[in-house]
This record gives sequence, C-alpha cells and structure tokens, in this order.
Amino acid sequence: MTITSHDVARLAGVSQATVSRALRDDHRVSAATREKVRRAAQALNYVPSEAGRTLSTRSTRRIGVIVTDLTNPFYPHVVAPLHDELQALGYRMMLITERSDEAVAGENLLDQSLDGVVLATATTESRLPAQLDRRGVPYVFLNRDTGQPGDYASVVDNEGGGRLVAGVLAELGHRRIAGIFGSPNTTTGRDRELGFRLALAEAGIGLPDSRVVRGAFEYDTGYEALPRLLAADEPPTAVFCGNDVVAIGVLNAAITAGLRVPDDLTVIGFDDLPMADWEVFRLTTVRHDLRELARQAARLLVRRITGEADPAGERLILPTEFVPRATHARLT
Amino acid sequence: MTITSHDVARLAGVSQATVSRALRDDHRVSAATREKVRRAAQALNYVPSEAGRTLSTRSTRRIGVIVTDLTNPFYPHVVAPLHDELQALGYRMMLITERSDEAVAGENLLDQSLDGVVLATATTESRLPAQLDRRGVPYVFLNRDTGQPGDYASVVDNEGGGRLVAGVLAELGHRRIAGIFGSPNTTTGRDRELGFRLALAEAGIGLPDSRVVRGAFEYDTGYEALPRLLAADEPPTAVFCGNDVVAIGVLNAAITAGLRVPDDLTVIGFDDLPMADWEVFRLTTVRHDLRELARQAARLLVRRITGEADPAGERLILPTEFVPRATHARLT
Repeated sequence: MTITSHDVARLAGVSQATVSRALRDDHRVSAATREKVRRAAQALNYVPSEAGRTLSTRSTRRIGVIVTDLTNPFYPHVVAPLHDELQALGYRMMLITERSDEAVAGENLLDQSLDGVVLATATTESRLPAQLDRRGVPYVFLNRDTGQPGDYASVVDNEGGGRLVAGVLAELGHRRIAGIFGSPNTTTGRDRELGFRLALAEAGIGLPDSRVVRGAFEYDTGYEALPRLLAADEPPTAVFCGNDVVAIGVLNAAITAGLRVPDDLTVIGFDDLPMADWEVFRLTTVRHDLRELARQAARLLVRRITGEADPAGERLILPTEFVPRATHARLT
Repeated sequence: MTITSHDVARLAGVSQATVSRALRDDHRVSAATREKVRRAAQALNYVPSEAGRTLSTRSTRRIGVIVTDLTNPFYPHVVAPLHDELQALGYRMMLITERSDEAVAGENLLDQSLDGVVLATATTESRLPAQLDRRGVPYVFLNRDTGQPGDYASVVDNEGGGRLVAGVLAELGHRRIAGIFGSPNTTTGRDRELGFRLALAEAGIGLPDSRVVRGAFEYDTGYEALPRLLAADEPPTAVFCGNDVVAIGVLNAAITAGLRVPDDLTVIGFDDLPMADWEVFRLTTVRHDLRELARQAARLLVRRITGEADPAGERLILPTEFVPRATHARLT
C-alpha cells in the first residue's frame, strides 16, 4: 500500500493542502502545525511524491547531464567533479546516457522535469541545443560546443593545444608527421586539428592526406590507424593523436608492429587522463584542468538558471600545457 | 512563455482533459479528435509535462541505476548494455552517481519518480535495500548483492572464479602466493577471496596475513600494495588481484620495482575488461559475460515490476572461465 498525503492529513488532523505546505516549510503554516505534520509523516514513513512537488513548485533542483560516450574514460573523470559541484550548489545530477544526442531529443527530455542540462558530447550537427532553446530550458556545453557565438560553454583551448604539439614536433626535427584526429563534427576534433595544421604550416611542414586519419575519440581509432599510416610510402616518424585514448590505441598497435616508442616513433596525446601517467605508457600529452572544466560548467549553468549569466552567451576557455613524458624523442 | 495543455485545448477547441487523454492515446477519445489535438500540439510545439503525466498514470517508465564508482572502468562497460536492454523493454535509464549508497538514501530517491532501481555498487552494509523494500520500490542487484536469501540479483560466480585461479597457481608450482582482494563489505571482494582461500587450503597452500591486502577495487590499491608485499621476508611469486583494475595497478608497480612479469612475478586479474587484452598488459584473468550480466539484471527488474518474478527472490549466477594470456608462468 502506498502512503499518500491523505493518510498524513488524516493522522495529523489537518487538510491535505496543509500537509503539502507544511512539508515544503511554507510559513503560512504555523510552526506547531508543521511539526505535527512532520511527525505524522515520519510515523507513516511517508515520502512526498516528487511529481506532486514538481507541479506545485515548478522547480525540480535536478540537472540532466547528457553523455553519449561513457566508455571513453574522459567522461567518467568529468562526471565526479560535476556531481560534487552541482551538489554543493544545491542541485541533483541525473546522468543521461544515450547512444546519440538525437536519441535524447526523441525522448521527452525537454519537459519540465529538469531545471537545466549539461551537454557533454554535443556535435556541431546536434539539433538538441535548438530544441532546448525553443523550450526555454537552460543548458551549457561542456568540453564540446557548437563553436558559434552565443554559446554558454566550458571548454579547453583546443586550437592552442594543437599548436603546442606542432611546435614541439617541429623543434624536435620531425618532418614526416601524421595526425589521427577526432571527428570533424566535434569542436574538440576540429579545433585541435586546426591549431596543429596552422602551426605546422607556419613551420613549413606539410600534412598530406595520406598521413591524416579522422575518427571517433576511441581506442580502436588509434589502434587501427597506425598500421595504415605505416603502410604508406613515407611512413611518419611522429603521430599527434586527438586524445589520450586514441594515443593509447597507437601505443598498443606499435607493440604489434614491433616499433619502439619513442626511438622509432614519437606519439603525443591530448587530455592528460590519469592513465597517461601509468608506467606502461608514460605518454607525452597536453594537459588541461579536467576538474575545473567540470566545475566551471556547473557554476555557469546555475548562473544561467538563476538569470545571472551574460545574455549574449559566455565561453569559458581553459588553457593547455605541454606535458613531456617518455613517448617523444628528437629525430636522429 | 511556457505552452500548456490549456493552449492546446483552446487551439483544438476541446477540453483540457481531452487534450491529456488524446496525447496518451486514450481510446475514449475518437481518432479524429486525437489527430486534431496532436496537430494543435505540434503547431504550438507543446511537450506534455512529465510531472503531470506521472500523476495521472503512476508509472514513469523510468529506471534508476545507482553507481557509486563510475571511474572504475567496470561500470561504464556495464551501463551501455543495461541502457540498451532497458530501452528495448520500454524503459528509460537514469544514472544516479553518488559518492555512496548512503548519499542516495538521503536524497529522495525513494519517491514515486522511478518505476524501479538497479543497485550496481551495493555493499553488504547498505541500508538502501531495506528503505526500498519499505517503500515498495522494486529493485535488483547487479554484480554485487547482499548475499542473503531473498535477493533479486544478477551476479557472477565469484567463489568459483577465485577457486579457478587458486587451482591454476597451485598447478604452476607457486607456493608463496599473495592476494590483493576487494573490500570485504562487498560480495565480490568477499566471495572471490573465499573461493581462492578454500581452494588454496585444499591444495595445502597457506595464505598468511602478511601476504593479504584488502582495499577498494581501484588502480591505487594494486599500485600501492605491491611494494608492501615485496618488502616481506618471503615475497610472493604470484599475486591474485580482486579485479583487473587492481591487477593493472600491480603491473605498473612491477615496472617501477624492476620486476619482469611473468618471469619474476605472476599476476592474475578478474573480469576480463577490454583493457586486459591490450598489448601492454596481456593480462591473464577470469572472464564472465559482462553484457549478459547487465542484460539479465534489466530483464529481472522488469519482471519484478510487472509482478512476474519469483516472490522468494531470484539470484541469477553467471559462470566464470580462466583466460590465460601473458602474465602467468610456471615457477622455475
């Protein structure tokens, strides 16, 4: 049997409306009555229906976080600080893990059961942001955005990070350089490639199509790309990878190919996930502050919800830093 | 401005109750009226409020999945098949990522906004199952359960898996064997240790406290345990780890310690995560069907919700299998 507010009202000897107000700490109800109702609710082990509460307050204090790629270890590392920061700000996080943003849009996410949404795996083609705009649901982008003015976004300086790596490779004397970039319909994939290309061009180094692979930010992308790159007429002496997970795929494929890293091949990643520092990898990579990326997304979303954000949009960009470890070497 | 069912009713020229029924495909409303309402809703870009819908149907088709340890790669690998199976059964999955089951209990999870709950990281001390029982919320355990009769659980034969590893190590001639087990307040930690100990004892091999470590199922547990085990008077020649993540911590620590695996040290894990097969590790481990573990949890929960499950509880136990790769060797 489900206990309802009727049962609590009967036990406390008040109306159902009074029960509802008392449990919301509404000050139109006297302190004595509130205490009486609370004790009755406790005695019956009554938990107020969230649905009923939502209809009366129009705020759920619930934030949806949409992640379509949870097996990419990047996202679990972002979820924990996001959860903690939202909780500190008085919100509960609900993680929504769909196969794609399209799937999310199809499933009535857009109703009133969320106060706001964090989009962590948006693509530049995603229709979800426009749908949220139409419904007036506040949202922010985390890590990936649309790249358009007006975004509310917590992102990394991807272009700057790509530039850093190109500069290092040029300085180490590499000329036959390959890139295994992320999907071109993500700003992380697109902008890391852009910065890398621009800085290579400035150094007078070409990047022919035969040394470029683009794919999902996954282990298999790197693992499958390396043999193809090595089969070319002039195989690369260095590979820049769109993220650490792709780079780890390359490092494993290098073992199969019988290549020594970094003597035969320089490999550089992006993100500095905890596993980049494992002894088996000691991956040279590009670092940004993953926790701060999540925290500033949470704070920005709450400012949007409370109406304190800049109406013209806000893009908060974290700097990047080169992290030299053991997978890069001077060309000899 | 938020569009409400009032607006749709006005445009369609019907009552608000008819709008609500029409959008639920209630056959008390004629097909023609349903079509008219649907077109009006579409024209206004109206999305029915989930809260309102919940009050009228008492079912949300929403399942909560509680995972307190998302950075353990085991759980992301379980979440994807769980999501797909629940979706195929007509339910939406909401992932709830708290720091602990206690935190979940504290935050009104127990109200009527979920049709059921999957507990993926329960401990034997968790109070959440009893709270769900009191509130009549159907739930199942995934991977970890309480070990008590009456559980509804999809689990692995942890004791059998522990036995398998002990048998292999004994057969390979190892006598100085160590165990880095999971938390004793989880059935996965407890039962893998139990099976391992029982089979070692049957083989006449002791497991002194100086060669036993227990801790969270995390990389750091293995990484920090190995140097301590090696500092003992009679260091181990083989280590059984509570899961693959712990084993990977041990493999990285072995590099720091200058040990060759498997020549100097045999290391065996549990779970057979995708990363166990990476070339850098080639981890010998114990396999179970991770996808089926998730799928059968989803199916069992839906049977509980629809009243088709055995009222005395159901524990579905998946078998384990030894997976020999490159981290074990005969003692020479």
